Amino acid sequence: MTDPATPEEAAPALRTGRRPGNPDTRSRILVTARKLFAQNGFDKTSVRSVAGGAGVDSALVHHYFGTKRQLFLASVDIPVDPTQVIAPVLDGPTDEIGRHLARAVLSVWESPHRPAVVAAFRSAMSGDEPTLIRTFLLEVVLRDLGPRVDDPPGTGMLRMQLVASQMAGVLVTRYVLEFEPLASLPVDDLIAIIAPTLQRYLTGDLPM
Amino acid sequence: MTDPATPEEAAPALRTGRRPGNPDTRSRILVTARKLFAQNGFDKTSVRSVAGGAGVDSALVHHYFGTKRQLFLASVDIPVDPTQVIAPVLDGPTDEIGRHLARAVLSVWESPHRPAVVAAFRSAMSGDEPTLIRTFLLEVVLRDLGPRVDDPPGTGMLRMQLVASQMAGVLVTRYVLEFEPLASLPVDDLIAIIAPTLQRYLTGDLPM
Repeated sequence: MTDPATPEEAAPALRTGRRPGNPDTRSRILVTARKLFAQNGFDKTSVRSVAGGAGVDSALVHHYFGTKRQLFLASVDIPVDPTQVIAPVLDGPTDEIGRHLARAVLSVWESPHRPAVVAAFRSAMSGDEPTLIRTFLLEVVLRDLGPRVDDPPGTGMLRMQLVASQMAGVLVTRYVLEFEPLASLPVDDLIAIIAPTLQRYLTGDLPM
Repeated sequence: MTDPATPEEAAPALRTGRRPGNPDTRSRILVTARKLFAQNGFDKTSVRSVAGGAGVDSALVHHYFGTKRQLFLASVDIPVDPTQVIAPVLDGPTDEIGRHLARAVLSVWESPHRPAVVAAFRSAMSGDEPTLIRTFLLEVVLRDLGPRVDDPPGTGMLRMQLVASQMAGVLVTRYVLEFEPLASLPVDDLIAIIAPTLQRYLTGDLPM
């Protein structure tokens, strides 16, 4: 697992702007945010409603957590901003988007952020509330990618979910269950193997 | 999700031969079996060692659970014998093995066994002990398939693990997180979409 692409560079750490503050207040805001994001999704949850639910002023929520997106990332315990990871993929050519996407995602999973990613995933699998991770993936991680691959119109969401299925499976088999030899496969080999799958899901014909 | 292949037929329920017996003894045997299978894998765990660990006679283990494979399936809480599911796939032509395998696995997941499969998977993801599900998949489910796709020699295990990655991802996205539209996609469409992926992993060129 000695990928020449330096994972740390490719996976910029989130500057969450966390300030010490009152730990009880912080934690009350986070609990409220988790509940509302899970209930209503990302778009329909406002910083104001989180503040209201936690009994604090909106300004205090911004002070502790920054933007709504940063509040959401803090509430799902994800240390990397997926938008920054996906952005370079969107700039690349469409016929190489599978390979670039595989590399972008694996650059995070092969970085020092791996334990946090695996922990968040395992916790999402075991919880009775899959809504939060669904919101995370569909409304936050994959939102910018959808329009890019919505061809023919209306297929973008399914295409992204098929990509998510292959990537989630890599997470399960390589990082959680640590199947060998898959877990020790050099990351470039893994990218070469799964990139055509992602590319077909993103831009190939779908039987529908 | 109106697959013409009747899932119930394709996924024969296990006749575990469970007899009432003493519930404490049964449960002690199961706890011991889980521990030993997790520690030593399927091949290196004998019914005798499980019986010894539980302080009972081997005959009683057979009486309660049947064969060692049935004891294992009981210990991982899986209601379907994967060997019976995979068997028809092995009889088919190699260039259609991806499609047949997708259909065989999905016939179980689309059957009334789905809740048990999803529960076992979620429990495996959340536990600190991924060894048992690793043993289940690699030594029990995929054992018969490996030799069939070991071309060039030595690649069979990785090929199966890549298949497992795509199928685990379908389990996560369609059944656990219930992404829409993927969760409502007719099973025949899903098979048509993932079969080429499985086929490439099983018989295509691998960069290694």
